[in-house]
Amino acid sequence: MKILLLHSDYIEYEVKKKTRLAEPFEGKGERVDEALVVFISVEKGDTEDTALKAVEEISEVAKKVNAEKVVLYPYAHLSSNLADPETAVKLLKFMEEKLSSSFEVHRSPFGWYKAFKISCKGHPLSELSREIKGEDIEVTQALRDEEKAKS
Amino acid sequence: MKILLLHSDYIEYEVKKKTRLAEPFEGKGERVDEALVVFISVEKGDTEDTALKAVEEISEVAKKVNAEKVVLYPYAHLSSNLADPETAVKLLKFMEEKLSSSFEVHRSPFGWYKAFKISCKGHPLSELSREIKGEDIEVTQALRDEEKAKS
Ligand SMILES: [Mg+2]
Repeated sequence: MKILLLHSDYIEYEVKKKTRLAEPFEGKGERVDEALVVFISVEKGDTEDTALKAVEEISEVAKKVNAEKVVLYPYAHLSSNLADPETAVKLLKFMEEKLSSSFEVHRSPFGWYKAFKISCKGHPLSELSREIKGEDIEVTQALRDEEKAKS
Repeated sequence: MKILLLHSDYIEYEVKKKTRLAEPFEGKGERVDEALVVFISVEKGDTEDTALKAVEEISEVAKKVNAEKVVLYPYAHLSSNLADPETAVKLLKFMEEKLSSSFEVHRSPFGWYKAFKISCKGHPLSELSREIKGEDIEVTQALRDEEKAKS
């Protein structure tokens, strides 16, 4: 699983068109202010265990930046090794449920073309990425460089 | 090299803070309307040849969506195998120069924390990604799925 976490003033999205893989969705979209927006590629081999590790990472970052809201935004462009749509939707729903005990959670629908507007705050923790594998979490090089830069 | 191409109503960014890897930059930021915004991770092993292939891909997409402006936006979060900063900046400048013969090109500075706002249009070609390797261009699974969906 690959995730990109953006601490945002707002995100606003609107569904435009279904892809063949679209999950059922009746709404038009929504706007969420002051949120940690998490773009997510669920990858082949990801399990509930992977998803739980992602939930821990997301929770930790949300707490650090004082975000009370989390937006889960399925995003196919972070990986070239995507899980099948059924698994992806299942794990996204699982993450939504787990995060809901601590945060106000919003989940945008899987498999739709969407227009979106986002405003990323720009402080040093406002853009982070993680690669979460079966066994452990790979902190991406960008973060390693940030961490080095701080040391 | 990994690139994420967003056909956008606008992008607006503001530099916030240098990282250790920052290239010199005197401005505050800028806003570009009606642009193809290209988020770019330059990777270890990328050469001018890789960059030229990326320029071809970017040009092709810009023409398809009728974008006259291209924004090159260095983005560390698309890869965990980043090139060193000198190579990255050198290839980004090279791409800027090559694209300038056909487009109005803007390049945001490398190695700065930046706040940004973007509005992605949401039509089927408004979000694409490519992985460009020495030998050939890997169309990501997301695009393959889109292409299958259309067939
Ligand atoms: Mg879109």
